[in-house]
Amino acid sequence: MAEKEKLTETSLIKKIERLSVETLKFNKSLIIESIGDDCAVFKDKNPVLVSSDGITENVHFDFGLYDFYEIGKKSLLVNLSDIAAMGGVPRMFILSLFIPARVKERDIGQVMAGIMETAKKYRVSLVGGNISKSFEFTISITIIGDYKNNNVIKRYNSKAGDRIYVSGELGNAWMAYYLRNNNGSGYKNNPRIKYSDKKLIESFINRFKLPKPRIELGRKLSGKKLANSLTDISDGLSKDVFNILGAGSSGEIRLEDIPVNENLKYIADILNIKNYADKAVSFGEDYELLWSAEPGKEEALIKLSESIGIKIKEIGRVTNANGPSRVIFLKNGEPRRPENFTFKHL
Amino acid sequence: MAEKEKLTETSLIKKIERLSVETLKFNKSLIIESIGDDCAVFKDKNPVLVSSDGITENVHFDFGLYDFYEIGKKSLLVNLSDIAAMGGVPRMFILSLFIPARVKERDIGQVMAGIMETAKKYRVSLVGGNISKSFEFTISITIIGDYKNNNVIKRYNSKAGDRIYVSGELGNAWMAYYLRNNNGSGYKNNPRIKYSDKKLIESFINRFKLPKPRIELGRKLSGKKLANSLTDISDGLSKDVFNILGAGSSGEIRLEDIPVNENLKYIADILNIKNYADKAVSFGEDYELLWSAEPGKEEALIKLSESIGIKIKEIGRVTNANGPSRVIFLKNGEPRRPENFTFKHL
Repeated sequence: MAEKEKLTETSLIKKIERLSVETLKFNKSLIIESIGDDCAVFKDKNPVLVSSDGITENVHFDFGLYDFYEIGKKSLLVNLSDIAAMGGVPRMFILSLFIPARVKERDIGQVMAGIMETAKKYRVSLVGGNISKSFEFTISITIIGDYKNNNVIKRYNSKAGDRIYVSGELGNAWMAYYLRNNNGSGYKNNPRIKYSDKKLIESFINRFKLPKPRIELGRKLSGKKLANSLTDISDGLSKDVFNILGAGSSGEIRLEDIPVNENLKYIADILNIKNYADKAVSFGEDYELLWSAEPGKEEALIKLSESIGIKIKEIGRVTNANGPSRVIFLKNGEPRRPENFTFKHL
Repeated sequence: MAEKEKLTETSLIKKIERLSVETLKFNKSLIIESIGDDCAVFKDKNPVLVSSDGITENVHFDFGLYDFYEIGKKSLLVNLSDIAAMGGVPRMFILSLFIPARVKERDIGQVMAGIMETAKKYRVSLVGGNISKSFEFTISITIIGDYKNNNVIKRYNSKAGDRIYVSGELGNAWMAYYLRNNNGSGYKNNPRIKYSDKKLIESFINRFKLPKPRIELGRKLSGKKLANSLTDISDGLSKDVFNILGAGSSGEIRLEDIPVNENLKYIADILNIKNYADKAVSFGEDYELLWSAEPGKEEALIKLSESIGIKIKEIGRVTNANGPSRVIFLKNGEPRRPENFTFKHL
């Protein structure tokens, strides 16, 4: 059992061990022992954050839409977003690869290149891992972070009267997914679409095909105490909004205030896509931050938005609930139910 | 993408969340936030240990040999052994389940029962996780531990002159695997095997089909400074021994001193299995501890062995290497190469 695996694993483990060395410098003061021992060892005087997320072939990705390099990147990016969603600082990660026999060494090299480039960009250290045979390609990552301060921002902690905020724009991940998914049959061969618009579409895809974890924003929300409750949008605003509501709190979201990219609207118009606004709140995968803060934080949030160059938009408010938490979506003051909306917390 | 999964995941996540609550009390003073948030949060003044290990259907287990309950147990036990192999105290874990559609809710219930029973036995808290669809059943666990003291015991740290020790007995996992694998066609229907011997075989399988992580022993080796270098035997002594040898150190193992269970020898004799001694050092999966200590620790180790009721055996010594680390296996003073032996570190 263990024998059979070990022989093919060995050169890959050695390679990953070499790659990991370059990333240890980012957190030298924390890390005592890393890849090569039975466990990684670190010491941290601040609260430690830990989370796991895995992506699997044909479930979370498709080799028609992502190449191996992008899959490597995405596997770490979604984990980094979990640290951002706690207002923490990402520090290190453990990588578990489940590799089918048909996957070539070159492809694994591409996956590792995507992971290591992302690790270097966000200054996280690869400290451990394991490799296993399988029939499907799966990457499972455990990310570890901490705080520079002691202000842990949880979910489910908003108070009635809080304003609800979102970063960036929603729907970009959905539109990039939609456009890639319809790559050949869709816009590319459509003679009614101008060359310049095709170029615009391609640049949209490239910009939004992978998430950008909002680590700096999360850290600042924590450091400056600008959030009572914080999460990231992975499953769609219409579901994830329930994750910030405290017990006895409900939510009200103004659909007209949902930030949507101008190019997304333009592309939707060209391609005659009517439901883009619903997709923007229901599809997910944007990995933008969603949080609540009591009134009086608006000015500090505008200042923060300007200083880090990330849009912040107030999109609703937290109200008192009589009974379980509910969320109402309003369009110009009238209730309007978005696609796939669930009404209550699952 | 995220949408499709979420609906079927929800009730399972709720169930796991409820199960996890019972385990939080074991580490109340460390854990700040657990399942239900974007990350788990804990605070620890001692060095923190972290490691991941995953088991996959048809690679690490086979539903003919293990049932779902046993697979649940094994998935956590192998991770606990990594903490034992550092001399640490297991504290908490994160559970990632990759579940095929054909696996029934009842089966997942059995997996969770095995995991939670093991968690309670070893007082580790389930603090986070994620669930994902897949085609193969995979359990990936990240275990987190710490120290009651500050004595981190690494691999690759033995010194020339050190004695090499092993806990328990080797080969039991192999024999249990062999017997289960030959369940129907083997001993069960063999008329030449007595009823009482069949009972003995069954009790052997039940006793050794799952590993017993040597946590207490590891902790004591660390606390009493009785090991310079420590690991656990997962791939077989003939490979794992290289993991304790420091740079410039080689090893010498006396095969006649390898501890082998008396019932294993008896069963091998009944079933006419000649190569059991080789299997004992090459098969692995025993998860016994393997360590080195300088001469003069013998008495303290005997005392420790008696106090915790775990056998400890000196099986060899660490020598100076001219060049890369090598290991010599000796049988009554003569070199003898065990099955699958690799000669040098992979």
